[in-house]
Amino acid sequence: MMPVDYSRFFSEDVPSFLRSPVREIFRKVDLGAICSFAGGYPAAVTFPTEHIPSLVSSVLEKYGTKALQYGDTRGVAELREQIAKRYGVPVSQVQITTSSQQGIDVCTRILADPGDIVLADNPVYLGALQSFRAYRAGVVPIDEYSAGLGRAKFIYVIPDFNNPSGKTLDLSAREALVRKARELDVLIVEDSPYRELRYSGTPVKTLRELAPERTLQLGSLSKIFAPGFRLGWIIGPEELLEQIYVCKQCLDLCPPVLDQYVTAEYMASGLLDSNLAGSIAEYRRRRDLMLSLLERFMPDGVEWTRPDGGLFLWLTLPESIDTVALYDKALDAGVAYVAGSFFYTDGSHRNTMRLNFSFIDEAKMEPGIKLLSELIRDAV
Amino acid sequence: MMPVDYSRFFSEDVPSFLRSPVREIFRKVDLGAICSFAGGYPAAVTFPTEHIPSLVSSVLEKYGTKALQYGDTRGVAELREQIAKRYGVPVSQVQITTSSQQGIDVCTRILADPGDIVLADNPVYLGALQSFRAYRAGVVPIDEYSAGLGRAKFIYVIPDFNNPSGKTLDLSAREALVRKARELDVLIVEDSPYRELRYSGTPVKTLRELAPERTLQLGSLSKIFAPGFRLGWIIGPEELLEQIYVCKQCLDLCPPVLDQYVTAEYMASGLLDSNLAGSIAEYRRRRDLMLSLLERFMPDGVEWTRPDGGLFLWLTLPESIDTVALYDKALDAGVAYVAGSFFYTDGSHRNTMRLNFSFIDEAKMEPGIKLLSELIRDAV
Repeated sequence: MMPVDYSRFFSEDVPSFLRSPVREIFRKVDLGAICSFAGGYPAAVTFPTEHIPSLVSSVLEKYGTKALQYGDTRGVAELREQIAKRYGVPVSQVQITTSSQQGIDVCTRILADPGDIVLADNPVYLGALQSFRAYRAGVVPIDEYSAGLGRAKFIYVIPDFNNPSGKTLDLSAREALVRKARELDVLIVEDSPYRELRYSGTPVKTLRELAPERTLQLGSLSKIFAPGFRLGWIIGPEELLEQIYVCKQCLDLCPPVLDQYVTAEYMASGLLDSNLAGSIAEYRRRRDLMLSLLERFMPDGVEWTRPDGGLFLWLTLPESIDTVALYDKALDAGVAYVAGSFFYTDGSHRNTMRLNFSFIDEAKMEPGIKLLSELIRDAV
Repeated sequence: MMPVDYSRFFSEDVPSFLRSPVREIFRKVDLGAICSFAGGYPAAVTFPTEHIPSLVSSVLEKYGTKALQYGDTRGVAELREQIAKRYGVPVSQVQITTSSQQGIDVCTRILADPGDIVLADNPVYLGALQSFRAYRAGVVPIDEYSAGLGRAKFIYVIPDFNNPSGKTLDLSAREALVRKARELDVLIVEDSPYRELRYSGTPVKTLRELAPERTLQLGSLSKIFAPGFRLGWIIGPEELLEQIYVCKQCLDLCPPVLDQYVTAEYMASGLLDSNLAGSIAEYRRRRDLMLSLLERFMPDGVEWTRPDGGLFLWLTLPESIDTVALYDKALDAGVAYVAGSFFYTDGSHRNTMRLNFSFIDEAKMEPGIKLLSELIRDAV
């Protein structure tokens, strides 16, 4: 049999596929064996694990085989109702997605052609960058856009506790964004996976609240329930959701049905809220510990964000330090992070890094930050 | 606030999105209230419903929070191993998908550009047609292709108990297909959701077995476990799976994790096989009942397939009957089917229809076929 050269079969999108450097790290290194601030996993201790069997049983009692059958492409009614109630929108404006990543992907698919421009956070969430690139859309930092670069289709932003930067946009920044969207006549994709994880400060109005007519707001159950369920949602104008609905028929027909009923039950029973209070307390403690460790161990010239929520801190090191080059050394020493330049479309900012404080064993935080501080001190 | 005309934001793919007429029927009519042979749902009685709670509990005992966390993009190792073992392939050739529909979609995405040609069954599975169209690929019946029509990228076929036709390709037809694929130098996407549901006759070699070097074989848990889990798989050459893996990072990061562990447990415990034996007996009985009812009630000039497996029968009525035009009348009378022309890319064959025998209440089969027979008799 002749060996087949498969590359000649691939679509023109394929060369633009971007591998997640984070997932590549996971493939190669057992992060459990070292002090890893890489990845963006929530803490397993926040999962309502002990409630899952009874949630499943009560769903099967209530809904029977309906919970195991194909479901509505828009999502099961009970979950859409829970989301609608929680966020104060009509059910008709809620589409359940098979993960928030699917939300990003399907929004990009219905909106962007090759060469179109997405105006994005800079640095930008990697999963979003992967989707934009995979559709061969250009990605331009919001402030650097001019019409000559191509047709802008939407602004993509994580306004609350940004991944990777940890920053939150204040009201005036959000209002400016909305003005910009209206001025450029583009839509807004507001990615809100962390919004409910606020540890300090006061909630700011969402972009959807400021500009409901042009915002698709993405939500995720991964940080307020468990990522293993792969469930998220999109809230937006019905005319946009209608196209997403049709597109989703091709993607996977409908989101996982039993998982949706279990989630609806988790929300309706009040378990989500009681569990969330515990998660917030847990993450607040971790954030505070992380900040105090950075304060204690980091050499002069290193700066970091102080996030009011979410899962990430962003470090800026002295210009002379290259976090990409430092990476293998760090792994050898027993500490992992994600180089900040991966989150920049131009690969710049090689003196930055993203640190996650949600997933690492708390006992490893101090040795990890100590190790990292020493590496940085040595590299200056 | 100015009303927004959203159509101007849409990508060039959007006008090619095809709504599933089946899903549209479901949206408008309560099929539970009538005799519905539409849809392609498996019988709820085949779901191992009573085992789900204990499967979930045993998975959580074994794997703990790992079953609720993010997982490997390729699928959890335990499920990949079960699939690999069942079908006699290395684990490295197995990618778990979030539904077999996602399998179709991701294969199309990595292979087809707008204007490329997919050589397909004729009639063809609607979900596949939706994906091909959504990527603006041309769809040409396998026997009608010539190079002038565009660049052919792959052959898409359901060789076992085809949806919608109910037909199975014999070995010589499969060998001819493989020769054609090699001659045209195209890949084969072998869609096999029903292969394990054989009620009579002898299994034929799969296209993957005949041409492993150029076949992506799609499998589904929907008919041998339950569709609510939205799980499927792709078996294929590693070089192709590698691109699917990278693409899947954008699509949803990973398939639902708890569902995958539950499925792996269902397979490893032997439950799948014992349950499958029951499903096959159930469906065989339904198929035989359906065939005998057609024999008894259908007027002369109506022909149908006698499938050896799967969920569907295909009816060919006298040329003068238009099943699209007949449809509203049928709904009013209390019986539903899917017009056959929906499965033809050119909308032809308006004298055909697809009947599903797996989902309808058995008690409704006789009145349903009687009603349908009368409608057809009146329409001749």
